[in-house]
Amino acid sequence: MNAATPTLVPPASAPRLLQDGTLTRTELITPGKCGPNSLFVGCLGDWAWDAVSQACSVNAYDARDATGAPAYLSFSYFRIRGSRRINPLSLTFGDRLQVASKVFGQGSESVLTLHQVRHDDGKPPEPLDPERFHTSTDQNALYVEIFNRWISRTKPNSNQDLTRNAPVGFQYRHLPSVPPQYSPRLVFAQIRESGAFDPDPEPPRTVAELFYTEYRVEPSRDLNGVGLLYFASYFSIIDWSLLRLWRHLGRDDRSFLRRLVLDQRVCFLGNADADAVLDVALTRRSALTDPTDELIDLVLTEKPTGRVLAVAALRLHGEQRERP
Amino acid sequence: MNAATPTLVPPASAPRLLQDGTLTRTELITPGKCGPNSLFVGCLGDWAWDAVSQACSVNAYDARDATGAPAYLSFSYFRIRGSRRINPLSLTFGDRLQVASKVFGQGSESVLTLHQVRHDDGKPPEPLDPERFHTSTDQNALYVEIFNRWISRTKPNSNQDLTRNAPVGFQYRHLPSVPPQYSPRLVFAQIRESGAFDPDPEPPRTVAELFYTEYRVEPSRDLNGVGLLYFASYFSIIDWSLLRLWRHLGRDDRSFLRRLVLDQRVCFLGNADADAVLDVALTRRSALTDPTDELIDLVLTEKPTGRVLAVAALRLHGEQRERP
Repeated sequence: MNAATPTLVPPASAPRLLQDGTLTRTELITPGKCGPNSLFVGCLGDWAWDAVSQACSVNAYDARDATGAPAYLSFSYFRIRGSRRINPLSLTFGDRLQVASKVFGQGSESVLTLHQVRHDDGKPPEPLDPERFHTSTDQNALYVEIFNRWISRTKPNSNQDLTRNAPVGFQYRHLPSVPPQYSPRLVFAQIRESGAFDPDPEPPRTVAELFYTEYRVEPSRDLNGVGLLYFASYFSIIDWSLLRLWRHLGRDDRSFLRRLVLDQRVCFLGNADADAVLDVALTRRSALTDPTDELIDLVLTEKPTGRVLAVAALRLHGEQRERP
Repeated sequence: MNAATPTLVPPASAPRLLQDGTLTRTELITPGKCGPNSLFVGCLGDWAWDAVSQACSVNAYDARDATGAPAYLSFSYFRIRGSRRINPLSLTFGDRLQVASKVFGQGSESVLTLHQVRHDDGKPPEPLDPERFHTSTDQNALYVEIFNRWISRTKPNSNQDLTRNAPVGFQYRHLPSVPPQYSPRLVFAQIRESGAFDPDPEPPRTVAELFYTEYRVEPSRDLNGVGLLYFASYFSIIDWSLLRLWRHLGRDDRSFLRRLVLDQRVCFLGNADADAVLDVALTRRSALTDPTDELIDLVLTEKPTGRVLAVAALRLHGEQRERP
């Protein structure tokens, strides 16, 4: 053994660039990267920051504007589209994933990252193609879209009134573009217009049920390392709220833990302070294309200001996963 | 650019072995690895599993006994000793750490891992020496002790009555030993005898204050990827309880977020199901050696069985960190 001996169970490979700019890596799923706790979502976010750092010649973990103030690559839109075979809750200890990531241009202050995630089968990674990414029905891949915007605080110690602010050195003009129909900006336009992802997704619409709950931001676990409400905590707050709906419907916690979430979309519209209290409004309906699927829409609103912090939509499949 | 191009901002180096068996790595602190949310504690646990996998020729992420049942490398004792300069809450986006880990023998069913963590200053890593580890007063290093035991479930779908169970292939006879005064078994003997880490730490003892709270295990975020109560969630439950004490004392949440925790010890005595309710008893006293330091003891007990799940002790420094 010497200082260069490789280890028996390498936790991850160093990320590698393909010629088209796709960043690829293999990742070992550890206890800190899976479970019903948004840890895997946190990884997806970190991998986006890695990909943007690489593609845009900027260290996203320590980016600053011309005045020296930190600029953060905040999460504006996040979609995780999976299948019965692979979804965030299906991952467990020891899984080895192959992750292909590609960054696309979205102007001078934002950026779009696509991740394609599959169980590592030893085959060499392929370039990520945005058209195939959006139209594929491959049940063996997880498709993740992440739209980030550079932001900064405008007031110290406050998570409100964050402002767009790209850091020095952010290179974006060379980035490839996505076809216009796949622009994340369409999501924002849709939500601005109707307040929801799919205002009328499958007419004739099934009857919707409404449910309301209240979530108090938890200072002991909801913030990130710079004191902002952590983007992955929004996923945890959504899951927390979904469990309250679950119980309201008379379902048990064990079935909640075995839920199969095929699609999650979250549009982040605002951040919040550590003492914020949120109103959560959930709308539930069944999908007409497959009545065993449930569609859940959520709106997170800060009290008492009425500021909307996030809009989300989940698609759950009626069949449940086996307990790991 | 070709398939072997290294990336601009490598998130981590592949772990490397030194000749004495010390496993070293550099790690980039990302949003998923820091903050007031036990994410860094989760990393420390993963790095212990990596080190044990390497030292004991077993894949800790997919270990099984002779019947094929999973064996988990569960956390029995965890200590994180830091300083004003480096502690889990001081870490933030972009920090680069150098981690040195070494595994010591503790018989056929358990193992002790020591991590020494410091900001990476580019100097080559040194072998980890257990004597220096325990006696050093170096303010630039974080000293982490992790005692793991191999366990398995005895009943499917239950997190109670877990039993010791080492996996096939676990190699331990070659591991170095720690001096007896540093054995983690002394901690268990002490807790069995007195119910606390330091029954009489600094006589004459200062007056202790008692505070009680109740924590309901949260199925939407407290379990790990195999359905057990996640070891890092115990740290979150401790922090959650500490915040309730903080508020009870009339202190504000902002000062809680700036707390400086110099030392945390957690002894894990039992796991719990997703619907468990815990009594948390906190004892608070000031340290006589430095009256600005507070000592907090916690006992987590399952209701209504009275089963003790964990005993913990924290040392907080009166001076607070700056907000990141």
